[in-house]
Amino acid sequence: MTATVPVSSTLPTDHDLTAIARRTRDAAQGLAILPTADRNAAIVAVAEALSAAEPEILAANTIDCEQAQADGIATPLYNRLKLDAAKLSGTIAGVRDVGTLADPVGEVQIHRELDTGLTLQRITCPLGVLGVIFEARPDAAIQISSLAIKSGNGVILKGGREAINSCRAIVAAVRAGLAAAGVDPDVVQLLTTREETRSLLALDRYVDLIIPRGSNSFVRFVQDNTRIPVLGHADGICHVYVDRAADLAKAVTIAVDSKVQYPAACNAMETLLVHEAIAAEFLPQVVAALETKQVTVRGDAATREYVKVEAATEDDWSTEYSDLILSVKVVADFDAALDHISTYASRHTDAIVTEDAAIAADFLARVDSAGVFHNCSTRFSDGFRYGFGAEVGISTQTLPPRGPVGLDGLVTYKYKVVGDGHVAATYAGTNAKPFTHRDLI
Amino acid sequence: MTATVPVSSTLPTDHDLTAIARRTRDAAQGLAILPTADRNAAIVAVAEALSAAEPEILAANTIDCEQAQADGIATPLYNRLKLDAAKLSGTIAGVRDVGTLADPVGEVQIHRELDTGLTLQRITCPLGVLGVIFEARPDAAIQISSLAIKSGNGVILKGGREAINSCRAIVAAVRAGLAAAGVDPDVVQLLTTREETRSLLALDRYVDLIIPRGSNSFVRFVQDNTRIPVLGHADGICHVYVDRAADLAKAVTIAVDSKVQYPAACNAMETLLVHEAIAAEFLPQVVAALETKQVTVRGDAATREYVKVEAATEDDWSTEYSDLILSVKVVADFDAALDHISTYASRHTDAIVTEDAAIAADFLARVDSAGVFHNCSTRFSDGFRYGFGAEVGISTQTLPPRGPVGLDGLVTYKYKVVGDGHVAATYAGTNAKPFTHRDLI
Repeated sequence: MTATVPVSSTLPTDHDLTAIARRTRDAAQGLAILPTADRNAAIVAVAEALSAAEPEILAANTIDCEQAQADGIATPLYNRLKLDAAKLSGTIAGVRDVGTLADPVGEVQIHRELDTGLTLQRITCPLGVLGVIFEARPDAAIQISSLAIKSGNGVILKGGREAINSCRAIVAAVRAGLAAAGVDPDVVQLLTTREETRSLLALDRYVDLIIPRGSNSFVRFVQDNTRIPVLGHADGICHVYVDRAADLAKAVTIAVDSKVQYPAACNAMETLLVHEAIAAEFLPQVVAALETKQVTVRGDAATREYVKVEAATEDDWSTEYSDLILSVKVVADFDAALDHISTYASRHTDAIVTEDAAIAADFLARVDSAGVFHNCSTRFSDGFRYGFGAEVGISTQTLPPRGPVGLDGLVTYKYKVVGDGHVAATYAGTNAKPFTHRDLI
Repeated sequence: MTATVPVSSTLPTDHDLTAIARRTRDAAQGLAILPTADRNAAIVAVAEALSAAEPEILAANTIDCEQAQADGIATPLYNRLKLDAAKLSGTIAGVRDVGTLADPVGEVQIHRELDTGLTLQRITCPLGVLGVIFEARPDAAIQISSLAIKSGNGVILKGGREAINSCRAIVAAVRAGLAAAGVDPDVVQLLTTREETRSLLALDRYVDLIIPRGSNSFVRFVQDNTRIPVLGHADGICHVYVDRAADLAKAVTIAVDSKVQYPAACNAMETLLVHEAIAAEFLPQVVAALETKQVTVRGDAATREYVKVEAATEDDWSTEYSDLILSVKVVADFDAALDHISTYASRHTDAIVTEDAAIAADFLARVDSAGVFHNCSTRFSDGFRYGFGAEVGISTQTLPPRGPVGLDGLVTYKYKVVGDGHVAATYAGTNAKPFTHRDLI
């Protein structure tokens, strides 16, 4: 395979977004009915096309990075934008891994005889078209494209302005790979202007799921400006509650890991709740351990009776620091801990540290968060750590999919009913025939 | 048990809807952690309280019906409002049936060892609080309350103005039953004013799912005016496509049943698509059969070359008649049928009649509707017929729950992770320990 992009895989010049979305949906319908092996072959072809295009992608990324530096981009954003050879080849290896995951499409969830010769199947199928809006990270375009192809979906990518050249080079390669595998390249589309974000959010007739990847305020903007379902979370305000019956050594270890192992992650702890019965003994230990890791601690009045830390304000309880900052509150009892979590948690992940099995069970039952953890770090709340093989996003909404979402978050299901001239009148009225409702799996 | 309503189960006089919603959520949290047997016992107690209150409920309904007649209510609405003794006792029997259904709460969907001593469970749990908005039918208040209690959810009911006395009597009895079973009666609430509908739709912090039961335009109003997920469908525009390889006798039977077995239902056929190769033979047969059942047929120009029927206009293809009216279109081939369905269907239920297995498989794969049927009536698209034991609603959205939704549409899940001091740092970096990811079920 060469890096030459065939004519059929050049990017659309059509500025009519509806037309693009319709083409994506049509192309996705073709992808959706391909057998597993053909979709996996397309992913291999995409990985090969990306490998072949590595020089072009890296050169395009260099242009983006130079422009970003000239524009005075912030360092964390620059780090996300920058694609070096190692990061790019690691991302391409990730594409090949997606090819080896179990197929989320075609799973028979229900197979039931309704009556002789009349059967019902509930079977998973692709959603249709995904709209993915991300900020600087160009590797996100690679990753999400492979997940979309695997799950039989079309995808309309909207990258950040900073990454425009990188994204163009990446999407051209992805489309070349699709074309080489005999798949309509219109399955993957790229939008590049800010105005197109609003238009994309309005396409509820053609786009089935929006996946925003960016800051909390950006996700909230998306949620507030579309009727399309949104997969994502605005906030990750996670708690660790150290119960009176906690093993304090475990509690220190878990608190430190939950805060410092990767503080920018949404599953990092933001607030530590401490039962007052063990506050005098525990707080000096945990604060010492945290300060060794450069964590700034902000405590409520009760906390500051035991340790010398900054004062926390009301705002701290609803702040996601995404940084080495932690708020600490002493609670009178278990119910006070639950009340605090119920009031301030973003329903992402909340943990209890205790050796009291009954209290732990009560916590896991009563805390209404996607992840409820006992005696372990909040940082385990992650699709890869859960063994999903891939993570599409983490959802803090109540309805499924909730929590870390794997490939199965990109499929839905349909009901197939097959008969031989069966009609509902047979099963209604005074001589109604009963259904058999016999499960076949 | 007597019909006397204890003080604790009187209706709230509090007009602060947020406070009502908060109380409902608190009460629901208590219900959510009850064992299956206790929730089932509460349902039995509710059924008993409703039976005991039958005279009061029927008397209240008589007041509503007299008022409605004085106001000149339309007959179909009056029929839905009217509760006679048989309908009421049938509805109460339905409550007892809900008690015997499988518990949707506490199902372990994933049980996986992540590493030695670190396990993951994905387990179903109630959504929280349901907001149910219905029009005239007071029996809906009984049915949905029992489904909510079964699934461990609180429910805020907003009934139509016409049914206010009936709903008050019903909800007082339901709350009395809950109190008798030791369950906080605030699990079930009743709102009665139109203004409260808007307020309810704004309570996304306390209400987890809105279930609107009413006209298409009402459902669309709800969908457009809330950030809370909505379970329901605005339209039911269902198709039957009669292929060139159809058994015409089966096709006539299926078309008649799909249209006339209950034309007001959302799963009734609105448009019949006929392959032109069999149009000359089939159309006279099916139109004759339909006219025997008082169906008015509207055909496109090609249809009217074969049968004498009214002319269909463009509007017909997107109209849900909910009546004995049918639009008919002759299509040039299979792809033209798919195109029509893709353009006009509400993605509810669409059927093909054919003896060609390959064409049938292609139809079931390519039509993107909640129900895709082969050689059977669209009228089978129903939770009871599917064997779900109850139907919460039918959803035409793409994401699950899709199609007829049973009790499992009223639950979500949470991830429980239990360790013994496990931290993420162990599984990261150069000496990262691998996860075992060993499924335990």
